[in-house]
Amino acid sequence: MALKSDNYRPLTVESLPERLGKVDAITTLLGVDTGTWDCKEVGDGNLNLVFIVTSGRGAIIVKQALPYVRLVGDSWPLPLKRAFFEYHALIRQAERAPGMVPEIYHFDEEQAIIAMEFFTPHIILRHKLMAQERVKGLGEALGTFLARTLFLGSDLSMDTAKRKHDVALFVESVELNDITETLIFSDPYFDAERNHHTPGLDPIVARLRADVDLKVEAHHLKAKFANNAETMLHGDFHTGSVMVTENDTKIIDPEFVLYGPMGFDVGMLLGNFWMAYFAQPGHGNNADYQAWILETIARIWNTFVAEFSHLWRTGRTGILYEEALFKDQQLGLEQALGHRLCAIWEDALGFAGVEMIRRTLSLAHIAENDMIEDEVLRAQCEARGLELGRFLVVNRARMGDISQVNDLAQQINKGATS
Amino acid sequence: MALKSDNYRPLTVESLPERLGKVDAITTLLGVDTGTWDCKEVGDGNLNLVFIVTSGRGAIIVKQALPYVRLVGDSWPLPLKRAFFEYHALIRQAERAPGMVPEIYHFDEEQAIIAMEFFTPHIILRHKLMAQERVKGLGEALGTFLARTLFLGSDLSMDTAKRKHDVALFVESVELNDITETLIFSDPYFDAERNHHTPGLDPIVARLRADVDLKVEAHHLKAKFANNAETMLHGDFHTGSVMVTENDTKIIDPEFVLYGPMGFDVGMLLGNFWMAYFAQPGHGNNADYQAWILETIARIWNTFVAEFSHLWRTGRTGILYEEALFKDQQLGLEQALGHRLCAIWEDALGFAGVEMIRRTLSLAHIAENDMIEDEVLRAQCEARGLELGRFLVVNRARMGDISQVNDLAQQINKGATS
Repeated sequence: MALKSDNYRPLTVESLPERLGKVDAITTLLGVDTGTWDCKEVGDGNLNLVFIVTSGRGAIIVKQALPYVRLVGDSWPLPLKRAFFEYHALIRQAERAPGMVPEIYHFDEEQAIIAMEFFTPHIILRHKLMAQERVKGLGEALGTFLARTLFLGSDLSMDTAKRKHDVALFVESVELNDITETLIFSDPYFDAERNHHTPGLDPIVARLRADVDLKVEAHHLKAKFANNAETMLHGDFHTGSVMVTENDTKIIDPEFVLYGPMGFDVGMLLGNFWMAYFAQPGHGNNADYQAWILETIARIWNTFVAEFSHLWRTGRTGILYEEALFKDQQLGLEQALGHRLCAIWEDALGFAGVEMIRRTLSLAHIAENDMIEDEVLRAQCEARGLELGRFLVVNRARMGDISQVNDLAQQINKGATS
Repeated sequence: MALKSDNYRPLTVESLPERLGKVDAITTLLGVDTGTWDCKEVGDGNLNLVFIVTSGRGAIIVKQALPYVRLVGDSWPLPLKRAFFEYHALIRQAERAPGMVPEIYHFDEEQAIIAMEFFTPHIILRHKLMAQERVKGLGEALGTFLARTLFLGSDLSMDTAKRKHDVALFVESVELNDITETLIFSDPYFDAERNHHTPGLDPIVARLRADVDLKVEAHHLKAKFANNAETMLHGDFHTGSVMVTENDTKIIDPEFVLYGPMGFDVGMLLGNFWMAYFAQPGHGNNADYQAWILETIARIWNTFVAEFSHLWRTGRTGILYEEALFKDQQLGLEQALGHRLCAIWEDALGFAGVEMIRRTLSLAHIAENDMIEDEVLRAQCEARGLELGRFLVVNRARMGDISQVNDLAQQINKGATS
C-alpha cells in the first residue's frame, strides 16, 4: 500500500482556508469569505493533524492524516489510507448510534482529510477524569454506544453479504492493525525497543515479563483480536476517544476500525476507566470521585448488557440464532444470549487487562499517569493498574460480575493486596 | 456479484476439444491433434461440470462451474466466481501440502474453467469405504494435510499482511459461504423446504428439532464458522473430496474455501468417517473393517496433533506466540500449544456433530447411507450418526481423547445406548 499520492500536501493554518475554501459543504457552514476563518492546529493525539476552523458563522474540525506516526516522527511511516477507514467507520457508527459521533461534512481521500462536526464545549474525557469532574449519563451513553455499534455491525443484525464486504474493506487496514497487535499484545511482554516505563516499576516489570501464564494468555487474546472478525470495532475506544461536557458524551477517532471480537472495545474502555481510578491519588485524593468512576464502570457494563439484550430480543435480523429455529422456545434464545454475554464479558476482562499493562509498559501511556510528577506516587498508581491487569488477563474466565471486579480494584487501591 | 459474463458458455464433450485445443499448456499434455482427444463428462458432484479428457499422450481433468447448483437446477443460481476461489485455494494448498492436490495446467476465469491433473487409478474415498477396501497411510495423509494447510494458512505462520489480503480475497465468496451457513447450521434444525430424511427417523428428527441445547450450540458453532477467520479452510473436507488408491491419498475440490476456524475442516472429516462407520451394516457387516475406520479416525487426529506440534515447534513465523516473548521459557510455548490443540479439538467435535446431523436431515446426504436400500436398516445407521452427532455438539467441551469418542461410537453402534 502506497503511503501517499504525489499530490498529497499536509495542511497548515495558512494554507487551509485557501484549500478548503472551494468546498461547498464547508463554505455553507463557515461562509465563503475565507479571510474571516480562524484556524488553530490542536492535534494532541499520536497520529494526525487536527485543526479547529471557526468563522463568525460556525466552526468545524479538519483532521488530516500524516504519512507517519506523529508521536514518533517520519521514522515510522503510516499510510494515509487510515483517513479512508476512519471515514467509513464514522458513517457506519452514525447509522448505528445516531447523534453520538461527529457528522461528516467533507471527505477528501487523496488528501486524507475529513472535515467534520466540532463538538463544543466538549473536552476529552481523560482531562475531565483528571479534573475530577463528573459527566451526567456518561456510563449510559458509553454502554449504549458499545451495545449498538457492536451488535449492529455483526452477523446478529447485518445482512451477511454486507458484513462480509465490510470485513474485506477493513481487513486491508494492515498497518494500523499491526500497531495494535504489536503495541498492545507483544511489546509489553519483552524488552521491545519502543517500550518505556516509570523506573520504580522495574521489579514488577521483570516479574511480568517472566510470567509465562500471563504471556500465553495475552497471546491467546492477540489471536482472538487478529482472527475473530465478529463485528466492526471502534478499535481505539479509550477515554481519549470520548468528548464530554457535564451532561453530553460523544465518540471520536475510529481510525483503528477493524472487524474483531466484541469484547475488545468494551475491555479497552473499562481498562482505561480502571487506570483512571488508580491514577486519582496523583490528582488530589477524592474518595467520592473514585467511587463515581467505579459506579460509571458498572453503569457502562450494565447498560451495555441491557441494550445488547434489548437489541437481541427485538433486532436479531442476521444469520445467527434465527427466529425460525426457536419458535415457541424463546427461552432457548435467552440461553444463547446468556452464553454470548458471558463470552463477551470474559473477553472484555482479558482485553481490559492487556490494555492496562500496555499503557504502562509499552509506547503510548495515559495522561492520567503521565501527569503525576511525583515518580514514586506515579509508580504506585501504575503498579496497581498492572496488578489488576495481570489478574484479569489470567483469571478472566473465572471472574464474577462487574461489582466483584470493582471490589477487587478497591482492594488493590487500598494496598491490601501488595 | 454477477453470476456470469456474457461470453460464458458451458463446455460439452463436443465443444471441449475445439475450445481447449488452442491452450498451449493443454496441448503440451494431450497433443495438438484434438481429433485424438476423448472426452467424458463424469461430474457426480452437486455443483459443476467435470470432464476427463484423454489422448494417446495423457489425460487431464477439466472442471467448469455452472451458474447454478447442479443438484437443484437453475432455480438455485450460483456465481461462476467459485472457480476463481477454487483456483486460489488450490495454488495455496499446493504450496502448503506439496503433492497432495491436483496440479493446475490452465485457469480461465471468464469461462470458470480449471484444467488440472487427473488422478488415476484413484477413486473417491466414499466409494472405497462402501466397498470396504483399506487405504494404506490414509489417516497419516489426511492428518498431515490438515495440519499443514491449517497451520500454514494462519497467523501462526503467514506474514500477517498476506493473511489479511487472503481474508479479504476469500470473504467475498458470499454465496458459497451462505450454502454452508444455511445447509449445515440452520436447515437441519427446523422444517426447512430443502430438507429430507428417511421416514423412519421422524420421531428422532422431531426430538432433535425440539432440542434447545442442541440448537443453541449449533448456532454458537455457526457464529464461530462465520466469524472466526483463523486460517484458510478447504471448506468442504469430507470423504467425497478425497481420492485414493490402495496406498495413495489426494485432496480435491476446495471451491468452498474460506477463512474460518481450524476445527471446521478437522471436524467435517471426522464426522464423515464416523458416519461411514455407522453405515457399514448397510454394506455387509464387517467388524474388522469397521474397526479399521475407527483406527483411521484415530490416526487422522493423532497425525494432525503430531504434525501441528512439529510445525508449531519449528515453523512459527507469524505474529502469534512470538519467540521473543518466550526466550528460555519453551515450556510456555508448549502450554500455549496445548491450549490451542484443546480448542481445535473442542471445535472439531462440534463441527463433526453438526456435519453428521446435516448429512441426515438437510439437503445433501452421503452415498454411504443413500445406497442402503433397506429403509429400516438405513434409518438405523443414520439414527446412530444422529445420536453421536447430538452428543458431540452438546458435550464437545467436556469430551476425553479420540479413543473415548471412538468408544462412544462403538457403544452407539452396538445399540447399547438406545
